[in-house]
Amino acid sequence: MVGLGPGTPEWITPAAQAALDAASDLIGYGPYLDRVPERSGRTKHASDNRVEVERAAHALKLAAEGRKVVVVSGGDPGVFAMAAAVFEALEAGPAEWLVIPITVEPGITAMLAAAARAGAPLGGDFCALSLSDNLKPWEVVTARLTAALAADFVICLYNPISKARPWQLGAALDLAAEHRAAETPVLFARAVGRPDEILRVLTLAEAIATAGTADMATLVMIGASSTRLIAREGAAPYVYTPRSVTKSPCATSQGRT
Amino acid sequence: MVGLGPGTPEWITPAAQAALDAASDLIGYGPYLDRVPERSGRTKHASDNRVEVERAAHALKLAAEGRKVVVVSGGDPGVFAMAAAVFEALEAGPAEWLVIPITVEPGITAMLAAAARAGAPLGGDFCALSLSDNLKPWEVVTARLTAALAADFVICLYNPISKARPWQLGAALDLAAEHRAAETPVLFARAVGRPDEILRVLTLAEAIATAGTADMATLVMIGASSTRLIAREGAAPYVYTPRSVTKSPCATSQGRT
Repeated sequence: MVGLGPGTPEWITPAAQAALDAASDLIGYGPYLDRVPERSGRTKHASDNRVEVERAAHALKLAAEGRKVVVVSGGDPGVFAMAAAVFEALEAGPAEWLVIPITVEPGITAMLAAAARAGAPLGGDFCALSLSDNLKPWEVVTARLTAALAADFVICLYNPISKARPWQLGAALDLAAEHRAAETPVLFARAVGRPDEILRVLTLAEAIATAGTADMATLVMIGASSTRLIAREGAAPYVYTPRSVTKSPCATSQGRT
Repeated sequence: MVGLGPGTPEWITPAAQAALDAASDLIGYGPYLDRVPERSGRTKHASDNRVEVERAAHALKLAAEGRKVVVVSGGDPGVFAMAAAVFEALEAGPAEWLVIPITVEPGITAMLAAAARAGAPLGGDFCALSLSDNLKPWEVVTARLTAALAADFVICLYNPISKARPWQLGAALDLAAEHRAAETPVLFARAVGRPDEILRVLTLAEAIATAGTADMATLVMIGASSTRLIAREGAAPYVYTPRSVTKSPCATSQGRT
């Protein structure tokens, strides 16, 4: 399993590149496979975004036949991507699959790329949460989000919005406003590392007003109570979270004013 | 600012390598600088691990003089590393530093490397928490840990233990046992990607009994209630967290038996 990072080839590790170069078969979501050049002797098996476990089982079946298979994810394969689906398929599959040598090659996940572009917003403790309620009840999402807000983590939201899930991001930001000040920095980091990259540094209030402008390619990051801006002339402000915490997280709830 | 990843050069991104190649001055903690080859025309400024803001100010001062300075971190510069310290120094420093062009190059942070080696333990929602109480009160650490445990996040503990902080990891694991079953998988992932790498897959009970065997180079990962093992013959089990969540996090507290 290989992670391509968020977009630019400049963020693909040499280890991931070597695995791609050695592969006979590449399996993954079409747009990720499109980022790997065509090459003779290497077959691409593109699939839809919604069939992770079938795709994983297909990869294991080919590998059991002796093919050199790479399952391709964007970002890091272990973070809201294909790695967990492969192990689910492995556990549910025939015993002979257990002898397949499986290697996971880490990649730059979207929150690290977004943070790097903005400054250092992950300078303190943080969490990563998928807003999708396809695989977990919405009550689990809100329970985790509430816990992370109350404990003053920086919060990275993956899968913030899609055509089938249009209201979840707005609901999550409304919940954030019950715990964080309206001026709290929020990032909408879209397609970081790709030609259509857009990094927007907003306040929480602005993020609530424009939640519908995020899309599936957007990583949303909600600052902690201590997350700060450094203004610059002619460029977006830097966003960073100081390393030090002086007050208890329980004392940081400020609410929307 | 550049992240070297956890150890092996195979995990240094091409973008990070290009920044190192273009540098006139490298600034960082000695053991990280040791991982970058000596080269004529490139000066290394090694420093102790405890003087981040002084080191950051030194980097900004050299950059303001027109030097091509790279601040070197292990892992990712934005995750419990140098990036936040540089922005702290920038904010506190003279106004002319604000025009220095600053770029952060992301890297493979330790939890991604540890997860990749183990399987897919970060398959669900997760958080990253520094156990060091040098920069925040211990009550903040325990409040955040308790929140993450109650909400059933997978928990990655950075800076778990040092000679000056010998008891914090044991206390954190004891706290985990109030929320997670004794059989919950826990990883002690030491020096992943380096020749002295050791990956240990433990139960929470075993982790508590052997907390003193972790060290500063260890990333500790506490599974969620759903984190599972897949046994293999002749190798450590795979560890993964299924993508689906079926029960409320509030119902997962099982306690130590």
